[in-house]
Amino acid sequence: MTIWNNENSEAREGDLVELVGVGYKHIILQLEKDGVLHTHRGVVQHNDLIGKPWGTKTTSHTGNPFFLLQPSLADLIRGIPRSTQIMYPKDIGFILLTLGVGPGTKVLEAGTGSGGLTTALTYSVGNEGHVFSYDKREEQQKTAIRNIEKFGLAKRVTFKIRDIADGFDEVGVDALFLDVPNPYDYLVQVKTALKPGGFFGTILPTTNQVIRLLPELRRNFFSFIEVVETSIRYYKPESERFRPVDRMVAHTGYLIFARPFLTPLEDSLESEDGDPDENSGKNQ
Amino acid sequence: MTIWNNENSEAREGDLVELVGVGYKHIILQLEKDGVLHTHRGVVQHNDLIGKPWGTKTTSHTGNPFFLLQPSLADLIRGIPRSTQIMYPKDIGFILLTLGVGPGTKVLEAGTGSGGLTTALTYSVGNEGHVFSYDKREEQQKTAIRNIEKFGLAKRVTFKIRDIADGFDEVGVDALFLDVPNPYDYLVQVKTALKPGGFFGTILPTTNQVIRLLPELRRNFFSFIEVVETSIRYYKPESERFRPVDRMVAHTGYLIFARPFLTPLEDSLESEDGDPDENSGKNQ
Amino acid sequence: MTIWNNENSEAREGDLVELVGVGYKHIILQLEKDGVLHTHRGVVQHNDLIGKPWGTKTTSHTGNPFFLLQPSLADLIRGIPRSTQIMYPKDIGFILLTLGVGPGTKVLEAGTGSGGLTTALTYSVGNEGHVFSYDKREEQQKTAIRNIEKFGLAKRVTFKIRDIADGFDEVGVDALFLDVPNPYDYLVQVKTALKPGGFFGTILPTTNQVIRLLPELRRNFFSFIEVVETSIRYYKPESERFRPVDRMVAHTGYLIFARPFLTPLEDSLESEDGDPDENSGKNQ
Amino acid sequence: MTIWNNENSEAREGDLVELVGVGYKHIILQLEKDGVLHTHRGVVQHNDLIGKPWGTKTTSHTGNPFFLLQPSLADLIRGIPRSTQIMYPKDIGFILLTLGVGPGTKVLEAGTGSGGLTTALTYSVGNEGHVFSYDKREEQQKTAIRNIEKFGLAKRVTFKIRDIADGFDEVGVDALFLDVPNPYDYLVQVKTALKPGGFFGTILPTTNQVIRLLPELRRNFFSFIEVVETSIRYYKPESERFRPVDRMVAHTGYLIFARPFLTPLEDSLESEDGDPDENSGKNQ
Repeated sequence: MTIWNNENSEAREGDLVELVGVGYKHIILQLEKDGVLHTHRGVVQHNDLIGKPWGTKTTSHTGNPFFLLQPSLADLIRGIPRSTQIMYPKDIGFILLTLGVGPGTKVLEAGTGSGGLTTALTYSVGNEGHVFSYDKREEQQKTAIRNIEKFGLAKRVTFKIRDIADGFDEVGVDALFLDVPNPYDYLVQVKTALKPGGFFGTILPTTNQVIRLLPELRRNFFSFIEVVETSIRYYKPESERFRPVDRMVAHTGYLIFARPFLTPLEDSLESEDGDPDENSGKNQ
Repeated sequence: MTIWNNENSEAREGDLVELVGVGYKHIILQLEKDGVLHTHRGVVQHNDLIGKPWGTKTTSHTGNPFFLLQPSLADLIRGIPRSTQIMYPKDIGFILLTLGVGPGTKVLEAGTGSGGLTTALTYSVGNEGHVFSYDKREEQQKTAIRNIEKFGLAKRVTFKIRDIADGFDEVGVDALFLDVPNPYDYLVQVKTALKPGGFFGTILPTTNQVIRLLPELRRNFFSFIEVVETSIRYYKPESERFRPVDRMVAHTGYLIFARPFLTPLEDSLESEDGDPDENSGKNQ
Repeated sequence: MTIWNNENSEAREGDLVELVGVGYKHIILQLEKDGVLHTHRGVVQHNDLIGKPWGTKTTSHTGNPFFLLQPSLADLIRGIPRSTQIMYPKDIGFILLTLGVGPGTKVLEAGTGSGGLTTALTYSVGNEGHVFSYDKREEQQKTAIRNIEKFGLAKRVTFKIRDIADGFDEVGVDALFLDVPNPYDYLVQVKTALKPGGFFGTILPTTNQVIRLLPELRRNFFSFIEVVETSIRYYKPESERFRPVDRMVAHTGYLIFARPFLTPLEDSLESEDGDPDENSGKNQ
Repeated sequence: MTIWNNENSEAREGDLVELVGVGYKHIILQLEKDGVLHTHRGVVQHNDLIGKPWGTKTTSHTGNPFFLLQPSLADLIRGIPRSTQIMYPKDIGFILLTLGVGPGTKVLEAGTGSGGLTTALTYSVGNEGHVFSYDKREEQQKTAIRNIEKFGLAKRVTFKIRDIADGFDEVGVDALFLDVPNPYDYLVQVKTALKPGGFFGTILPTTNQVIRLLPELRRNFFSFIEVVETSIRYYKPESERFRPVDRMVAHTGYLIFARPFLTPLEDSLESEDGDPDENSGKNQ
């Protein structure tokens, strides 16, 4: 059980909680005895929150309202201080599902970045699983480590400073995700770490990178290659004028998934008509 | 650890495995000693698979190749025999993330349907969490139960036959998802089962249903209401002619998320300018 | 020939021209002898432009470069001073094509608004066609008239101040477009003005309006009803890093098209299986 | 006035008309005295249609209903017998608007293909404009010519059989559209035919082609380069269950627009911060 998603019906000392104030401003904080939170709308005493049930409304010394909440995973990820491009919830949800990351999964990622995906991975693998997170930039990874520790997830992840050209220490991991600009340079290392038929994924912002990656995947006997863009569109939640919002994110990156094998599948499995099995998920 | 996503490097008797044959045809089966699989491309002996490492290539009696794989979660969900509209991976991934479903989560769903979301939920909550799944159609639920049992996830879920108008047995669950045509009729029941500030979600195919739901959510003091459409577009994974596929899914449903409170947040938290906090996730 | 899209290879006195300066700043102006243009990057003399071939590079008195261009229709529309929501090129192009607006077409629109659609309509109908543009807000229409006059298109359009509840003066027009919030209130007036089987279109921002319009269309014997959203996504035109832009317009409005008849088609033409002809354009 | 979009309120001999029958089956035909139309739902006499007002309901000899309509431009284009990939209305509308094609425009296209875009161009330029359409495949072009003649638009277009590597005969055209796989090979020819600052467009199905085109455009002093994808999503026009259709077109091609100059604009016009003018249409 992580410290924030606990089973208690009220906030306790040490819990990571979320306060929501005027304008739906989100603040994530860890409750400490006698702690004090300074906001633009006044001071809130931690002691006024400790022991209170979720959903409690409190007020700052200036009379502004704040609601006490368990933080959502998406809010935690969105709230991470970022020194690099953050991964978006729209992509993270799809990545977790496609890689099959869940309780007990052993998953490897590189680079760590700001730790957005690391947070989701460590949350999802549970105490029985484990995350191995590589980055070559020490300063970068320190920031991510601080976040993961704040979220109470540190014991589920091993951080390493490494140029992944030198390879990974692990073998037989269930899933492996690369968030680096040049994944095509590390496919041999990926294959060594990932079990045969394991789940590989990567995200690339430009078509040029995808174009460069695809032949390298095949050359290294990766199969079930899928390239996919996700997008989400929010609606204004107004019953009398129900319509989409005016603007949306147009692009984050292309997601590429594949599974490595010891021999090339494609030579064997292409059917005469070239049509993929309709259960293969294309177009879904 | 679920039976299919195990730590072994080879397939064992009792494992749920995936065979992939010509045309990328996926077949999911449970390995049994002396078992026999009949396919359009010949007969495969289970004994030829038991004890073999993942990625092994075998052949049917007619000489057609098959590759031995651990099934992916997405393949399992896509492969579920469906008597109702199935939920799509593009939506399931986003739902899990937004509801914060992970190891240890207690989550309630209704209706069970074909068990696609049930599968993802039971996989994600791990052995420390639990899923409560309600449906009023007994035959329907039986099919879902068979699937969940096949996946080795049965002990993580409690199935109930119930008209949810009569309420849920649980209180204080972390998350609750309704996949019913009229969620607006059950919000009092939802609030009773869900902890304050817990995560509620539902999926509705038509705008009319969303329009009807929104005021009911507010009337029942749900806040942080988000309405969102997800979409994914696949690309042809061809390096020399990289382009999207020709056709795609245009619509599955509108996802609606909200969190219930004891008092209405909106009266307190609307800022003067009405602009939501930019961390609230809108437009992302 | 409109004054801006002329056959000459060089700019003449009286021409509506476009100057493009640093930062791709667009300026639209009418050339006058001895005219002077003041910009943030210096003063440009009209005399330096008159008689010069399209594409000529000139400089302001401060040495900043400006290029002399014929304005594009899209730039003219985007540049219209707007007191109301403007219609977007992505929608206008699709509207013109679907309504079949071209040389010789007689088309009616209400309301005039800022004149964005009016500009495209008057441009497209040529000297043999005609546009009738209604608005009940006199001040509003005056602005549009000024724009249309500046574009040299005034003689192709008749402006009228009218509450269209009182009906239109024209009968037998080829096409009719309503850009009003409540088109469902004017369908009898539309049918009277439009020839049987003529082309009707409207744009509505919210689903509620569409839901209200649809039964009124059927009640008034409109058929071939199509509801469609258009969207466009721009790419960064960079060869080495080819990818979509970061953000895009998520919504402008729902376009609804239909054709009026004297008797209801749908009763007669629904096939047994309910499938529309695949040439009917659905899904395209 | 084209023969099909005429000012008459009734169908005349020689008119191109549209019949719509059960299942919304569209049939386009030219009315001839004593002509006979054979359909799957019976025989229709042309004489029963000649002189009848638009919207008239007639019946075949087997009693099946047919409605008499003026054809829409979109229906004509969709109905063209195609030997090549046809261009879609969603793209054609946007192309016409962006290229500024209207009455009086002189526009050049290559290749002719099945004549879908040719139809829209000849319709739009009116009697004062002209279209020059090149193709190197004589058989291909013959089909297009037959369509254009059927539509009564032949006198507005000059067809030429030519390998466009040999250049175009025209100079100073207003707009030029290439629908060929390798537009990057013909940019010198394009520049010679197009007036400075004229409007160039092309459509390419793959990202690889776009990536190859972009540097060639810059090398040939084209500027205002825009790359854009259009998409449309249809809705089921049902008031009680208003929602998008299930599937849609995911991709037709990337549209690329640019304007040629005698000198490179980009060197002069890049602003310090690199931000384009917000009126430049990006993101719209």
